[in-house]
Amino acid sequence: GDEKYAIYVRDMLLAYAKMYPELPLHPTKRSYATGKIFWQCLNDANWLVYVSQAYDCIYHFLSEQEREKLEKDLFKPFADFLSIGNPQFFNRIHNHSTWANAAVGMIAIVMEDSVLLNRALYGLQKDNIPEDLRDDDNGFIKLKDQNEAGFLAQLDHSFSPDGYFTEGPYYLRYAIFPFLKFGKALVNNQPELDILAYRDSILKKSVYALLHQTDPNGLFFPINDAQKGMSWRAREVITAVDNIYYHCGQDADLLSIAQLQNRVLLDETGMAVAKAIQSGKAASLKLNSMLFTDGNNGDEGGLAILRSFNENENETCLVMKFTAQGMGHGHFDKLTYALYDETGEVIQDYGSARWVNIDQKGGGRYLPENKTFAKQTVAHNTVTINEVSHFEGKVEKGEKHSPDLHFFKADNKDFLAISARDNHAYPGVEMQRTLALVKDEHFRNPLVIDVFRVSADTEKQMDFPLWFHGHLLSTSATLKTNVSALKPLGEKYGYQHLWHEASGFPDQPFHQMTWFANGKFFTVSSTTEKGDEIILARGGANDPNFNLRHDPVYIHRKSSVKDAIFINIIESHGTYNPVSEIPLSPFATVSSVDILYDSGKYTIVSLSKENGLKWELAIANLNNSETANHSLEANGVIYKWKGPITLIKK
Amino acid sequence: GDEKYAIYVRDMLLAYAKMYPELPLHPTKRSYATGKIFWQCLNDANWLVYVSQAYDCIYHFLSEQEREKLEKDLFKPFADFLSIGNPQFFNRIHNHSTWANAAVGMIAIVMEDSVLLNRALYGLQKDNIPEDLRDDDNGFIKLKDQNEAGFLAQLDHSFSPDGYFTEGPYYLRYAIFPFLKFGKALVNNQPELDILAYRDSILKKSVYALLHQTDPNGLFFPINDAQKGMSWRAREVITAVDNIYYHCGQDADLLSIAQLQNRVLLDETGMAVAKAIQSGKAASLKLNSMLFTDGNNGDEGGLAILRSFNENENETCLVMKFTAQGMGHGHFDKLTYALYDETGEVIQDYGSARWVNIDQKGGGRYLPENKTFAKQTVAHNTVTINEVSHFEGKVEKGEKHSPDLHFFKADNKDFLAISARDNHAYPGVEMQRTLALVKDEHFRNPLVIDVFRVSADTEKQMDFPLWFHGHLLSTSATLKTNVSALKPLGEKYGYQHLWHEASGFPDQPFHQMTWFANGKFFTVSSTTEKGDEIILARGGANDPNFNLRHDPVYIHRKSSVKDAIFINIIESHGTYNPVSEIPLSPFATVSSVDILYDSGKYTIVSLSKENGLKWELAIANLNNSETANHSLEANGVIYKWKGPITLIKK
Repeated sequence: GDEKYAIYVRDMLLAYAKMYPELPLHPTKRSYATGKIFWQCLNDANWLVYVSQAYDCIYHFLSEQEREKLEKDLFKPFADFLSIGNPQFFNRIHNHSTWANAAVGMIAIVMEDSVLLNRALYGLQKDNIPEDLRDDDNGFIKLKDQNEAGFLAQLDHSFSPDGYFTEGPYYLRYAIFPFLKFGKALVNNQPELDILAYRDSILKKSVYALLHQTDPNGLFFPINDAQKGMSWRAREVITAVDNIYYHCGQDADLLSIAQLQNRVLLDETGMAVAKAIQSGKAASLKLNSMLFTDGNNGDEGGLAILRSFNENENETCLVMKFTAQGMGHGHFDKLTYALYDETGEVIQDYGSARWVNIDQKGGGRYLPENKTFAKQTVAHNTVTINEVSHFEGKVEKGEKHSPDLHFFKADNKDFLAISARDNHAYPGVEMQRTLALVKDEHFRNPLVIDVFRVSADTEKQMDFPLWFHGHLLSTSATLKTNVSALKPLGEKYGYQHLWHEASGFPDQPFHQMTWFANGKFFTVSSTTEKGDEIILARGGANDPNFNLRHDPVYIHRKSSVKDAIFINIIESHGTYNPVSEIPLSPFATVSSVDILYDSGKYTIVSLSKENGLKWELAIANLNNSETANHSLEANGVIYKWKGPITLIKK
Repeated sequence: GDEKYAIYVRDMLLAYAKMYPELPLHPTKRSYATGKIFWQCLNDANWLVYVSQAYDCIYHFLSEQEREKLEKDLFKPFADFLSIGNPQFFNRIHNHSTWANAAVGMIAIVMEDSVLLNRALYGLQKDNIPEDLRDDDNGFIKLKDQNEAGFLAQLDHSFSPDGYFTEGPYYLRYAIFPFLKFGKALVNNQPELDILAYRDSILKKSVYALLHQTDPNGLFFPINDAQKGMSWRAREVITAVDNIYYHCGQDADLLSIAQLQNRVLLDETGMAVAKAIQSGKAASLKLNSMLFTDGNNGDEGGLAILRSFNENENETCLVMKFTAQGMGHGHFDKLTYALYDETGEVIQDYGSARWVNIDQKGGGRYLPENKTFAKQTVAHNTVTINEVSHFEGKVEKGEKHSPDLHFFKADNKDFLAISARDNHAYPGVEMQRTLALVKDEHFRNPLVIDVFRVSADTEKQMDFPLWFHGHLLSTSATLKTNVSALKPLGEKYGYQHLWHEASGFPDQPFHQMTWFANGKFFTVSSTTEKGDEIILARGGANDPNFNLRHDPVYIHRKSSVKDAIFINIIESHGTYNPVSEIPLSPFATVSSVDILYDSGKYTIVSLSKENGLKWELAIANLNNSETANHSLEANGVIYKWKGPITLIKK
């Protein structure tokens, strides 16, 4: 009620109104949609989303003349510039356009301008956007067969039916703000739209999906272009939690997230959350193992999250990505995964090569190394063939295909599994990955079993990278280390950014590499064949401006094979702290891993511990029927099981 | 009182007694004093310190025959082996021998064996140790002019008069346990010695000195050979705090440390601490800026700790080392310093190249890279000349000299300073470093001003390394980065372990390098001259077993100079977190640094901020009188001040 704020807002807006009619494009001209106030229309749209709210707040304080001046000289031309002036920005299915639609729609509601509101909801009728037009990230402007645009089209096309956002959680965190702010304005002003019920309550679903795509510390999985460290605590997620709590059923589980956020909005939604917490209503949002589909029909692959807990209730979390390309911000990383525990990353995803808003690093924008490294396949934990990235690193190829789910198994919390296939990342190559997360009293922490099969039409070099997070302690293969000179590991597709530190050639069909991180010992135990090479490399080559992190990577290379199977067991087996200086269980307890059987149809692998424990994991690679009975003989033993996967403990 | 434990101890000891008489030396034969049970006598002595207590506990439970058997076959020969059998181990002034003396003395007290007790207190009468005998770390066994040995000699020679332990806090933490355990046994059994009052209560002083040699998180400064992460929480420090509290005046300040430790001993001392805390007696141990002398007469240099606090009471802590060599575990790092804030290291000391007790890394012992890298000068934040370490990296040379304090100023908590000189690390070279830590409302955090003067008899290459902890953001010099091949920076004295990543040649007399770490922005602003080179390098070269951390270092090189002055301002100017993505003050506010005057007698430097602030720091390099008046003209301005250092704010 203090007028001084209204006066401040009025005077500022009038100053903008004076300037805007003559304002040229921003001089940077670096964007596919250059703004006027900022370097890209996106930032102008951000501005209008916030300023619409400010205008709404002082609307009745202003004189009619002032309103007329503001609308005629500032808001209408501003909204026209973001829409008619930039159809390639306004008429996309993309987080940018969500901001644009919301900005135009929100100012339309304040101005009671039904033409603009219609434009915001349904897009421009005609846009004349060429089919092959791309944005700054090389993403297509138009989706294939896209006939709709505007806010409702965003709701229809940005999400899978279960709320997964195809660009990934980092960008959903960003887009959820205009989705919900404009959504709320529509609740208040266009109740007949019933926007929160739209598409089976897709906005609510998307918020829950966002909250689930987090590691044990509440940090979003940094898949696709994403800066690490973004979390539940982000202001946009506070907005999301408070609004969904207030408008969508007052789910007490959300209050636990609000408690972690330790902040609420200064409006009726935040007040409701704060009061509910104060009155002891908070329940706990249980993050279970989950499968999300991708694609607006849910048929373009997906994302699997496996969560398991050790006896101290510390979480191990595995996320496997077999999504669609994810548009311009997508990475070329079919069938990749990342692993977390309660201390953070164990097997990391690099995230984006960007220091968001930090001027010294390329003005805070995406860095060249984002394209040349962070997006490339070798920067991820999945197979690279012939040192070329999936889909040759081309968005237009990547957008045509997505992997297929084979099975997802979360009915037994002690034996979780996911299996998916990709037949398109490389022509003539079929890849299938099956990942299991097993909790068992014989292991201190849940064990990862990773079975990655590759079948190619001709002999190829196959590299299996593991971005272990920590310091190398030992390898069972003798290493030949490049002690007095370093060269890049390759020339293209991200390899040019890896310094080749060492190679080893395992002389046994079994290899172990142990590392130390965050007070813990980890070992990856792998099957190997004659001719296999173990490579240790590190980021930072061909990086003139020190943009990259110098993280280590372990690469299992098969130089020339048609069919390959990479079996890897990841064990978190011990701890050490520098105060006690006592290592507890510093060595792996897994003592052997063997392939008992492998064909296109079935794979059986075994692992043993020195204490005599032996497990056999049997996988039906083609048949995902839960009820199918399988039987086969391997090494004179008959194996029988039901369903796509089974773990036999001996 | 439960006999089962007594039975267990008895049976175990009898089994040892059966084995011991025939036990040969441990087969490793890797130590200057190989043990029988373990690879070194030190570990055997550890064993006996603990087992003496066990024997004491069950002494009256045992039959006379059992005692006779244990003493004749196990304890007496064990004590003889540690002393007469290994004079080079027993008759030193060293943490090893403290364990040996305590072990022999403690078992002597249980057995009431006055011959052994005398030996423990006063050493072997004759040892025939050759004067140039060295231990595994290349330290001398005998100190120069050492005529005493035994526990009392340790108390006389291991500490400076104010309790500084010449090997540094990591090893004091280790040695304090036998010092206090045997000390306590002497309190109980030889009260006439009045051991806790010995040498003006040196044991009590040493515990306080230990507690003060910690960063803002309670971690010991990792000077000399030291594994990082060791802290107040160590079991030995719990023993020290509880015992000194109980036996030395019940200082309520110590209770605050006990609270941080969150553990007490299960004896009368721990009980007293717990009860005192429960009854609300805990006060807070205030860690002030401190100067410790080194050398048992306090005349062999020292260690200065400067502590300053920003407006949020977050600490910035600077430790400058100008101690004696520190025996075999000493590093060649005269006039080095390290910098900490509340998040941890800002300018780091490498510590030791060792993974204590982690078998995969050289059995957990010191690694070869400890000698070839961690001890060398370039691994520290001090000047290296002609790519040779101080004293050519030779302990016998290093032990002959120590630097001299010029002045220490802590009377004004907003302007702390330390200045020291070294004239021996290089023949014909005089080095003087003056470090100031300044708190002022114009800077968000205390500012470090570092003035390092070097005067040589002939032209030499001078390298000034800064082991900044974090990720390089920018340099004002254009960098020529080695993008497609890396070579080591040099061949010897640690340089062979540095990959040469980039060089730049500042074209202005002022250079800035900004880095990011732990959510903060830091900048070092330096004066430069024509021909100066900025080198970016990183640890890890010539490291076949991945023993080293791959940490970055910034080196300011002057290729051929007789007199050099390195002026560096270190500013912690801003913050960023990945949740808000908003950088606050990402650029340095210091805009220029100039040398206004420099001679052997005086140095005046100035620094400016863009807002017009200008400071001048005047130093009297030779005269440390607090009352001397100084006056000189520089650039037409007359400067007048009193005392060795002054900061003029304009």
